[in-house]
Amino acid sequence: MGNATVRRAPIGELGLGTGKKARLHRILYKHGLGNGTAMFLPYDQGLEHGPRDFFDNPASGDPAYIVKLAVEGGFNGVAIQVGTAEKFFWDYAGEVPLLLKLNGRTEIPPADAPRSPLNASVEDAVRLGADAVGYTLYVGSAQQEADFEAFAQVRRDAHRFGLPLVVWSYPRGTSVDAKGGKNSLYAVDYAARTAAELGADVVKVNFPDPKATEGVHKTYAGQLGDQDAVSAVVRSAARTPVLLSGGEKGGDEEVLDKARMAMEAGALGVIFGRNIWQRDHDESLRFVARLRELLEKYPA
Amino acid sequence: MGNATVRRAPIGELGLGTGKKARLHRILYKHGLGNGTAMFLPYDQGLEHGPRDFFDNPASGDPAYIVKLAVEGGFNGVAIQVGTAEKFFWDYAGEVPLLLKLNGRTEIPPADAPRSPLNASVEDAVRLGADAVGYTLYVGSAQQEADFEAFAQVRRDAHRFGLPLVVWSYPRGTSVDAKGGKNSLYAVDYAARTAAELGADVVKVNFPDPKATEGVHKTYAGQLGDQDAVSAVVRSAARTPVLLSGGEKGGDEEVLDKARMAMEAGALGVIFGRNIWQRDHDESLRFVARLRELLEKYPA
Amino acid sequence: MGNATVRRAPIGELGLGTGKKARLHRILYKHGLGNGTAMFLPYDQGLEHGPRDFFDNPASGDPAYIVKLAVEGGFNGVAIQVGTAEKFFWDYAGEVPLLLKLNGRTEIPPADAPRSPLNASVEDAVRLGADAVGYTLYVGSAQQEADFEAFAQVRRDAHRFGLPLVVWSYPRGTSVDAKGGKNSLYAVDYAARTAAELGADVVKVNFPDPKATEGVHKTYAGQLGDQDAVSAVVRSAARTPVLLSGGEKGGDEEVLDKARMAMEAGALGVIFGRNIWQRDHDESLRFVARLRELLEKYPA
Amino acid sequence: MGNATVRRAPIGELGLGTGKKARLHRILYKHGLGNGTAMFLPYDQGLEHGPRDFFDNPASGDPAYIVKLAVEGGFNGVAIQVGTAEKFFWDYAGEVPLLLKLNGRTEIPPADAPRSPLNASVEDAVRLGADAVGYTLYVGSAQQEADFEAFAQVRRDAHRFGLPLVVWSYPRGTSVDAKGGKNSLYAVDYAARTAAELGADVVKVNFPDPKATEGVHKTYAGQLGDQDAVSAVVRSAARTPVLLSGGEKGGDEEVLDKARMAMEAGALGVIFGRNIWQRDHDESLRFVARLRELLEKYPA
Amino acid sequence: MGNATVRRAPIGELGLGTGKKARLHRILYKHGLGNGTAMFLPYDQGLEHGPRDFFDNPASGDPAYIVKLAVEGGFNGVAIQVGTAEKFFWDYAGEVPLLLKLNGRTEIPPADAPRSPLNASVEDAVRLGADAVGYTLYVGSAQQEADFEAFAQVRRDAHRFGLPLVVWSYPRGTSVDAKGGKNSLYAVDYAARTAAELGADVVKVNFPDPKATEGVHKTYAGQLGDQDAVSAVVRSAARTPVLLSGGEKGGDEEVLDKARMAMEAGALGVIFGRNIWQRDHDESLRFVARLRELLEKYPA
Repeated sequence: MGNATVRRAPIGELGLGTGKKARLHRILYKHGLGNGTAMFLPYDQGLEHGPRDFFDNPASGDPAYIVKLAVEGGFNGVAIQVGTAEKFFWDYAGEVPLLLKLNGRTEIPPADAPRSPLNASVEDAVRLGADAVGYTLYVGSAQQEADFEAFAQVRRDAHRFGLPLVVWSYPRGTSVDAKGGKNSLYAVDYAARTAAELGADVVKVNFPDPKATEGVHKTYAGQLGDQDAVSAVVRSAARTPVLLSGGEKGGDEEVLDKARMAMEAGALGVIFGRNIWQRDHDESLRFVARLRELLEKYPA
Repeated sequence: MGNATVRRAPIGELGLGTGKKARLHRILYKHGLGNGTAMFLPYDQGLEHGPRDFFDNPASGDPAYIVKLAVEGGFNGVAIQVGTAEKFFWDYAGEVPLLLKLNGRTEIPPADAPRSPLNASVEDAVRLGADAVGYTLYVGSAQQEADFEAFAQVRRDAHRFGLPLVVWSYPRGTSVDAKGGKNSLYAVDYAARTAAELGADVVKVNFPDPKATEGVHKTYAGQLGDQDAVSAVVRSAARTPVLLSGGEKGGDEEVLDKARMAMEAGALGVIFGRNIWQRDHDESLRFVARLRELLEKYPA
Repeated sequence: MGNATVRRAPIGELGLGTGKKARLHRILYKHGLGNGTAMFLPYDQGLEHGPRDFFDNPASGDPAYIVKLAVEGGFNGVAIQVGTAEKFFWDYAGEVPLLLKLNGRTEIPPADAPRSPLNASVEDAVRLGADAVGYTLYVGSAQQEADFEAFAQVRRDAHRFGLPLVVWSYPRGTSVDAKGGKNSLYAVDYAARTAAELGADVVKVNFPDPKATEGVHKTYAGQLGDQDAVSAVVRSAARTPVLLSGGEKGGDEEVLDKARMAMEAGALGVIFGRNIWQRDHDESLRFVARLRELLEKYPA
Repeated sequence: MGNATVRRAPIGELGLGTGKKARLHRILYKHGLGNGTAMFLPYDQGLEHGPRDFFDNPASGDPAYIVKLAVEGGFNGVAIQVGTAEKFFWDYAGEVPLLLKLNGRTEIPPADAPRSPLNASVEDAVRLGADAVGYTLYVGSAQQEADFEAFAQVRRDAHRFGLPLVVWSYPRGTSVDAKGGKNSLYAVDYAARTAAELGADVVKVNFPDPKATEGVHKTYAGQLGDQDAVSAVVRSAARTPVLLSGGEKGGDEEVLDKARMAMEAGALGVIFGRNIWQRDHDESLRFVARLRELLEKYPA
Repeated sequence: MGNATVRRAPIGELGLGTGKKARLHRILYKHGLGNGTAMFLPYDQGLEHGPRDFFDNPASGDPAYIVKLAVEGGFNGVAIQVGTAEKFFWDYAGEVPLLLKLNGRTEIPPADAPRSPLNASVEDAVRLGADAVGYTLYVGSAQQEADFEAFAQVRRDAHRFGLPLVVWSYPRGTSVDAKGGKNSLYAVDYAARTAAELGADVVKVNFPDPKATEGVHKTYAGQLGDQDAVSAVVRSAARTPVLLSGGEKGGDEEVLDKARMAMEAGALGVIFGRNIWQRDHDESLRFVARLRELLEKYPA
């Protein structure tokens, strides 16, 4: 496994048709930092984890608060489910790009063999004026057959309508647990590649943990450093730009370090949710300001 | 978890298109109390529980009796299955809004992993002159994937035809049982949010039991009072108005207390069935009068 | 030709399915006089005649003014084109029934062989929350073949979705001109019957002029009085309720006389536009009050 | 549980559209006794049980024999599968109403969770000149979700084409077995109601056995007499007319007693197969004559 | 005819769904002047008039030159046919909004009864990343029936996909010629209203010539001044924002005067093509600068 950081491909080299290019250009250059580096605000935790994610900052339970925060913070887009989009995007429509998350599930049923059902279609996204769609792919799940097939239809629809397709590529299920776990480099690297192979325009992954090697394929047994692990993942995604997720709320410095690592690896940017809005409003904007300062150093 | 009661959003702020607004306005302001607060009469228990629910008041087994009761009691709508609507709504068509319940099941098969099959379509509802449609979502069921996908199609059809979509959002299945049970605040709160995220226009939930904490996510372990629990659920539904169900027949004062709690929490209103019609005709109307007197104190 | 006035059939005897009955009941008993007699406000003259119809009362050029007037005047419905409905009905959605006019034309091209093209579908009407749809049928036009065929599809769609279908049944074209003209009893009587034969739920006609007999079929050569002429038309429509149009603005007494004649003939009511809104706001409401006073004497 | 016998609703009060009314009127008043009481001849046992049912009277294995018997016996209709209809109805087409049974299964696979697959469509029935269609609903089966959804489509098609829909509403599956069994009053009562709620025009049930109370819902634990049990079922079906099945061949007096019980309960009539044709031709007609004599005493 | 200038409605009051609002906001506030006032660059003259329009500035025959000019000049959008969009928009996709013109014709066949055929669909526009679609409606043409019907489908598709629909509303045909001509106030006023009644989101008209009164409806015989004529047209379009076309190239001051007149009348802005690009590159930008300076004085 080499360790050269990949050069980030300009969007003109991603093989995108006119509509996808128009929308991705708009996301990356007409919003956010405007320099081709992305900072998205995800907000589908109310579905994925339930209202408990809002307890630290009760205001965050109100989608209007979050969409406004995405505008105030100058994000490149806000990722929400269809019900939230129907009721809360109108007020700010056109002010911040909408990344409509097409599938999603609750955490209640067991996650041995998860599949994330489609709650909305690409056509819903077009109708709502979204600039991109998102799809969660559970790589390695026993249900990956149905998942891949549903994804294939979404990819075709996204192609037909010219919307960039962002894939939440997440290793999941009992087989993943047995082979290093969902955060192992083996799993995350494989997930990034899988999304690229299947037609993602952008892939969103969690930070890999190169120390999780128990049960992984022997080729992944040698441990890499954290930076090299992220770089490997970005490289595996080939021409598919990579977004790194923040996951649970961590310390500010730790989160900024992760963002720096992502950018050093050649990622497209970050998609941080709980680290942004699980604190009060002014604290959120202060942290966003620090994040922007960092990302500005990594123009496309 | 905060405890401020949310202000009930006026229907002009719910992000509804013209047809949905026309029909919801008609339901809330041209029927019932006419003050924006809702009182629905549900009558699909013959399917959900079987004829046994009619034994206390045999007259209640006749749908004609119930639809007439909905007119006499001045309800904002009567919620029935398609077969009942086909045969019994014509007589009173236009006198009380029809909320066509689109799915439903019998209680006979096991409820480990339930899914409520579609017995009617949104187009059936349009044809029958319904002003709204209802869908039961079993949040947390192992079948939630198929459920969410069926719901997504119903949501799209309801949007296409401009009918408000009322979601019976019910936690169900073995995973729910293991995580606090179907009445735990964790489950009810999550169900309300799920319906909102997926695109309900109105969400119907059961009263949460904040004392049911065994197995719930740790963030829900601290007990709230009953009122705070209902308020939390209404808040989690964000801009989606909430209806509280009555469930099994209880004492009059207890039921009225629950209605008061719902309204104090900022709910849209109540949907009480067995508490209304499991008593003789005149007793039903007397209880409805008391309920109306209470609800009149909570205009939109 | 007999002259007995027909008894107006109650809506339960019109052979309507549940949806049509629900919506017609709502129009006739939950709005307007609430006594089963109808008073509609038509406002598609901006398309049919152009803005010139608004010159006498410039405020009337604003659809918002008219929809509000329909609410203030307590009309049973307002008849508008789809563009007007899309932009102006939302504000009052649910407060006054919408009768979506599905076809319409400008007066610019010659009217030798007119056909009124479809500008909206029954599904558009459902989506907008309309309670009825309107269709202009040019009886006797050389294009009546295409017209009847388009109408047949509208009728089927109105049946499928349960919306009452109001037919503007207007004799038109050079053959009509040669056989007594568009206002002859021969032509109006034939038009009323044609709409009934082809499946109208309600038919809207102009007042027949029994003195226009030049060129009419010999059976119509004997002149009837005005009242008998209107009665004949209502009778020819059989079980299809009849609305009488006002046409150009006339003197108040003359218009009220016409309304009285319509009601004496057993009509469902009137649909007056220019006679209402081609005067200033307060004058409009004063005239509406006189009209209501008259119509109240003719409950269903 | 009350015990008043319900009045049988005349077909003009069943909420039927024109086509359904035309066909049901023809079945009930132009065939059979001609008095509104029904006597159907079912003949799908060759599929449901196999040829073994024909061993007592080998002639009965020939569909031509049965269709002729339906004509000779003056039945209100003959219920057969599509293949039988294709080959044998032509000869007597128009002489006896055809009730095309749309679904059906063999008894070979286990019946733990049965579903009866669709072997024909409502459109097939129209093409064959059928006056009604039949559908078997296995209430309580673990497959009831797929069953209800298939039924909903059949209901819509039957509505679209105007054919009365007769539902064989049969409790089945392991959950039913555990809750009193398929003949318990709990199960049969629930099945009748389920068919009514879901949109049957006529429901066909087996005679309930009020002594089967082991495992039933507690509200059904108190035993009723046989007559009261049948009456309860007819009442639970509300406005949906009920046909009682004969099941296996029994003694003549016993069968006639059951028919009398059905009619006393307010049923629409009976649908007896094996009790008719599992004996030789002349014996069949003699028994039919006794049955007619009885049914004549119960005009609509 | 009144003469009060109408207040320009903010886009939040135009009755637009989320997608249309998102895209119109983006066009009006994220591009061009960014103040809600619009300046579009139309470039379909190569189809409508042929290459002769490019002779004054041969560079203008190259679509790449024009799309770049739209970016350089800071236009709110460029209006082109589908072939041009397919080949030339990719390079600047996302930098300037695309207004895909869906229909168009050559000037070669006679224009007695013109209809502009559909060369692209709304779905083509979505795929290409367009932010709006354009449709030419020939009001008053003998083919207006087919035209209105094609338009109705485009309107429905634009609604379904959430794209604003800009209507080039042009009076045309022999009847128009006989009634004052295509530039008469009667014709332009009627055309603006027609587009509004039929569902345009934005209407584009030519400047009316109030002196063209020969043959116009008598109500238009009294002459208005130029400013009053433009104001009347904007008012007739009611809540539909109006764009004024420049038509043939005129003197700079004359064109700027027209733009001022449009803005004084409450128009949304201008759509000038030949006046922009029928001169060399730097002259174009200098004229655009003067135009921007003017439009900046009329924020929404």
